[in-house]
Amino acid sequence: MNIKTILGGITAPKGFLASGIYCGLKKNKEMKDLALIYSETPCSASGVFTSNMVKGAPIYISKEHLSNKKAQAVIINSGNANTCNGDDGLGKAKRMTISTAKALNIATEDVLVASTGVIGVPLNIDIIESHIPALAKGLSKEGSSNASSAIMTTDTFKKELAIEITIAGKTVTLGSMSKGSGMIEPNMCTMLAFVTTDINISSELLEEALTKTAKVSYNRVSVDGDTSTNDTLLILANGLAENPIIDTKNDDYYTFVEALEYLNVYLAKKIAQDGEGATKLIECKILGATSEENALLLSKSVINSPLVKTAIFGCDANWGRILCALGYAKVDFNPEKVNVYFESHAGSILVCENGSSVNFNEDIALTILKEKEILIKVELSMGDYEVSTWGCDLSYDYVKINGDYRS
Amino acid sequence: MNIKTILGGITAPKGFLASGIYCGLKKNKEMKDLALIYSETPCSASGVFTSNMVKGAPIYISKEHLSNKKAQAVIINSGNANTCNGDDGLGKAKRMTISTAKALNIATEDVLVASTGVIGVPLNIDIIESHIPALAKGLSKEGSSNASSAIMTTDTFKKELAIEITIAGKTVTLGSMSKGSGMIEPNMCTMLAFVTTDINISSELLEEALTKTAKVSYNRVSVDGDTSTNDTLLILANGLAENPIIDTKNDDYYTFVEALEYLNVYLAKKIAQDGEGATKLIECKILGATSEENALLLSKSVINSPLVKTAIFGCDANWGRILCALGYAKVDFNPEKVNVYFESHAGSILVCENGSSVNFNEDIALTILKEKEILIKVELSMGDYEVSTWGCDLSYDYVKINGDYRS
Repeated sequence: MNIKTILGGITAPKGFLASGIYCGLKKNKEMKDLALIYSETPCSASGVFTSNMVKGAPIYISKEHLSNKKAQAVIINSGNANTCNGDDGLGKAKRMTISTAKALNIATEDVLVASTGVIGVPLNIDIIESHIPALAKGLSKEGSSNASSAIMTTDTFKKELAIEITIAGKTVTLGSMSKGSGMIEPNMCTMLAFVTTDINISSELLEEALTKTAKVSYNRVSVDGDTSTNDTLLILANGLAENPIIDTKNDDYYTFVEALEYLNVYLAKKIAQDGEGATKLIECKILGATSEENALLLSKSVINSPLVKTAIFGCDANWGRILCALGYAKVDFNPEKVNVYFESHAGSILVCENGSSVNFNEDIALTILKEKEILIKVELSMGDYEVSTWGCDLSYDYVKINGDYRS
Repeated sequence: MNIKTILGGITAPKGFLASGIYCGLKKNKEMKDLALIYSETPCSASGVFTSNMVKGAPIYISKEHLSNKKAQAVIINSGNANTCNGDDGLGKAKRMTISTAKALNIATEDVLVASTGVIGVPLNIDIIESHIPALAKGLSKEGSSNASSAIMTTDTFKKELAIEITIAGKTVTLGSMSKGSGMIEPNMCTMLAFVTTDINISSELLEEALTKTAKVSYNRVSVDGDTSTNDTLLILANGLAENPIIDTKNDDYYTFVEALEYLNVYLAKKIAQDGEGATKLIECKILGATSEENALLLSKSVINSPLVKTAIFGCDANWGRILCALGYAKVDFNPEKVNVYFESHAGSILVCENGSSVNFNEDIALTILKEKEILIKVELSMGDYEVSTWGCDLSYDYVKINGDYRS
């Protein structure tokens, strides 16, 4: 399939507009903290939400509004997660959708909502409501950059992508923006991601495509093993590409799934790369597993290990910590068949063969590990399944960002 | 029950001797790296070992030698974990027991073995074997201090305790030494613990008491969530206290279990307190859970959360991160019934009531969190079960110790 990267982010697909402004939730007035995504026509819509038992108030409202699988706008604030605020929080999340619906002259149920930032602090709904008319007025084709700025917390760069594919002779566009594990005030990290597309697809298949691709992208990223209360991935599809509607799993459907997976994996990796304090993007690829589930458990165990993460930070070819992390993943495998490689743009080196040390060149290993993107490749030599997960190293800055308030 | 703390560590019980010397495995000649524990008479013996799929060679040998539930000596080295060395490692672990048995004139099967240190590097068995005669010759009642020094890696203090109890009118003594999450060379952390006692008990009930108390002590400690390849807890009981043999679960048995739990919890907490880079000991107590298993999962989720650990390092009363960690423990509970307190020697403060913020005094919270031992108390208000786990904060020094090789 031919996937073409284009400019335009979240507003690249036909009929989508966006805006982003500062309303006063963040202390720094140079930042933006309120974003709006809007489709000129109604959309099929779907969402994937955090598995955390403690959920932010916006999650409940968005889920309720998605029950008819339709939506037309998404309102997002940073600077306050509106979580652990009881009924007051639920009421305020609802009010965000009511005010947005009024400004856009659409139904409240067609507005979704997401929040990220400090938890357990009452949301200042008044300043949000007073800024929503200006936010709606600012909607434009050029608004994607402002919108993606407004959802950032301690992200160090904006995360946007737009791609084009061809389906049944029609150009179909997908746009996306996301934010990663950042902190605003000393509190909570949250992953938010939004996808817009002009593809014509049934809401059932849209949901299936989103769930399927979320599993192999956002659900395979880990910055510190913590699952936020507010994690949200939303998709809106307005059909303006005018391809014949996709309502069965035909070739067009699989083309769309492939493109959506490409988009989601790209942005998921950006989140790992921009993890708090991260200096390196780490991929752990497990090869030769007896099942996908086992491969995933093993890969996640390695990518989450603090000892592996600090070793990569220190450019140390410490394969022993990788074997140790594989060993406590509670998955059956034969340690004596395991091979481990470190790879990067600088090259590839085998450091452990059949579970034991090989006499590798430490200078070459160091050169490989000094790169910014590191692949840990593990061959289990047991089956045919392979899985990658993505994470980042653990640096002094992770501790600084998350722990250095009082010292 | 009256538990009396006494001097003497691992050699406090009747009939036990110990020694510790430098044989050359560690680079620093000021350190010790080879330890021996010996009972003048045969012992009932039992062990609890790592659940990691990748196990150190000594684990296989000790398990084999424990099959008859008897032992008389334990040989331990630091500086090399003898792990991921294939058959060569197994052969060398066996040779450690053979040489020790020869020097002590006992059966090879009565010698247990444990190793801690770098993994994937061949063990220098020759220097160990050449030093075993001197090690055996050095056995003495005063040897506990040298032995506990010789098992240290990056531990910053020795971990020893001896206690006395009375059973059926006889004085029964338990001694113990342990080492925690330390690193020797840039590699592996391992928990080792050894208990000696002169109690007269059947090997079956000794095993049951050890397994039961390990679950509520060492298995409730976490420094960084990583489970080592070499974790080992061993107990030897020689019967010289001459109490009537304990071979049914009578009052004497439960008295012993209580004393053993006290000893194991004490040393397990010392390991958490001395975690790599740790500045604070953290206890997370879950109250009001619907089952012990749920309480344990929730408590471990909090104690392992990097965001909670960095918050405590920063003396930040960030209860939101605690609710978040409870929420991803994959346990059913009602977030709207959760109360959270921070406690220390300086006082106690309620920071979250019924899942929402309370307007607490931040200065008082800071005073409480500046202490060295912090209790996070979580009330679920759902059932009658409670569980504590112990861990430590996550500091710059954790990253320095584990990641700062090349920078």
